[in-house]
Amino acid sequence: MAPDGEVSDAAGEAMVAQRPISNILIIIAMQTEATPVVNKFQLVEEPESSFPKGVPWVWYHGIYKDLHINLVWPGKDSNLEVDSVGTVSASLVTYAAIRALQPDLIINAGTAGGFKAKGASIGDVYLVSDVTFHDRRIPIPVFDLYGIGLRHAYPTPNLLKDLNLKVGKLSTGDSLDMSPQDEATIIANDASVKDMEGAAVAYVADLLKVPTIFVKAVTDIVDGEKPAAEEFLQNLAAVTAALDEAVAQVIDFINGKCLSEL
Amino acid sequence: MAPDGEVSDAAGEAMVAQRPISNILIIIAMQTEATPVVNKFQLVEEPESSFPKGVPWVWYHGIYKDLHINLVWPGKDSNLEVDSVGTVSASLVTYAAIRALQPDLIINAGTAGGFKAKGASIGDVYLVSDVTFHDRRIPIPVFDLYGIGLRHAYPTPNLLKDLNLKVGKLSTGDSLDMSPQDEATIIANDASVKDMEGAAVAYVADLLKVPTIFVKAVTDIVDGEKPAAEEFLQNLAAVTAALDEAVAQVIDFINGKCLSEL
Repeated sequence: MAPDGEVSDAAGEAMVAQRPISNILIIIAMQTEATPVVNKFQLVEEPESSFPKGVPWVWYHGIYKDLHINLVWPGKDSNLEVDSVGTVSASLVTYAAIRALQPDLIINAGTAGGFKAKGASIGDVYLVSDVTFHDRRIPIPVFDLYGIGLRHAYPTPNLLKDLNLKVGKLSTGDSLDMSPQDEATIIANDASVKDMEGAAVAYVADLLKVPTIFVKAVTDIVDGEKPAAEEFLQNLAAVTAALDEAVAQVIDFINGKCLSEL
Repeated sequence: MAPDGEVSDAAGEAMVAQRPISNILIIIAMQTEATPVVNKFQLVEEPESSFPKGVPWVWYHGIYKDLHINLVWPGKDSNLEVDSVGTVSASLVTYAAIRALQPDLIINAGTAGGFKAKGASIGDVYLVSDVTFHDRRIPIPVFDLYGIGLRHAYPTPNLLKDLNLKVGKLSTGDSLDMSPQDEATIIANDASVKDMEGAAVAYVADLLKVPTIFVKAVTDIVDGEKPAAEEFLQNLAAVTAALDEAVAQVIDFINGKCLSEL
């Protein structure tokens, strides 16, 4: 039993699941992916964020219907001026944003590579069921499982029925391309889509016990003919539109609902 | 010019460089590597750390001569009970520890794989000159450099002269083994040693402007005959002794000195 005046973890979680979601945190790795969401929901940048001096992380926020929407983007690398993609930046910004904003729900949205062997096409939007890493090979018992880092997305059966998105597993690695070793792990992970952030966001959200869902739109076919980088850049703008439409639909669905109704 | 009553960044950094180092933060990924340092300096675990509930990170601290020594270890994975190795954990714990402890200097100590082609042998201890990543391939201009993430260790010419350690470059990746793609990048990075945390610690320390040095001891020869995992486990205990002796020597050298005297 919890001491008087305190609520046990399980009871606390059950209470949160029963009251309407009010505070959501959208984590997006690239400016091109973030800007349409910022514009659609008329989010404003907070210049005096609670992030420490020196970090490039950008926090946008605003009110939409009954929701307080926060969007955090890791910003441009201070030295190189490119988007701070990948697992290290994603894990840091997820940690700092959870600590500062105490969200009820995280939506990690972004573009991804898709596998045609698993039925993915350019422009498809996936609601992810499970996330794993594919570039953390530690061939020592139990450490191997730690490296894979399997985590489940928060279950959202009603959202899925309503939106008619594709469902699949996501595998994360810090490279845009795919080595034969990555490919073997991705196949073992049974992934339909691959990105560069999802499993890191999931790791941090799991540490700090924040329910998280993943919305990923396919910019390039990894097991196709074209080089990933070329196809990615070619389709980024168009696919981002599909991604942002899906994110908007997800937010409209979430509004007024409890976690347990998703 | 800085406003009255404030000190400009450059002036502030110069002042720090001129006063004796008083607060150091040692970051070590594995318990086996951390325990001898904890014992040697009689550090005590702080049960009420300022880390959030749910994270497995462990903070030890104590006083040694004129130094306040903090040692942070990412702890055991909450689900799998193995050490939380790799770049995601290392970046999170570095971020949280810098924010909580405001160290003057970070020492990232640990074991590493060595390359005999670069002159490394089992038991060698390296003081690292530069760090890079070798498993973040993003073949788009400028993003490729971001992926490599080259950063320089804080220069310590006097420490190096005094201790007679080997000097070399460190390359970091999340796998214990080495794929052909990793190997090509490690060769391009001109690395003598490879680990699973250094470049992530360097990234965060650079974001938050904390001088950082890296002390890495060789447990296995990557370009040798034996499998990395087998050789790593075989040599871990013995090489950890060499690592801890080097860390103790570094701390004795640092005591009473300013950053600019290192």
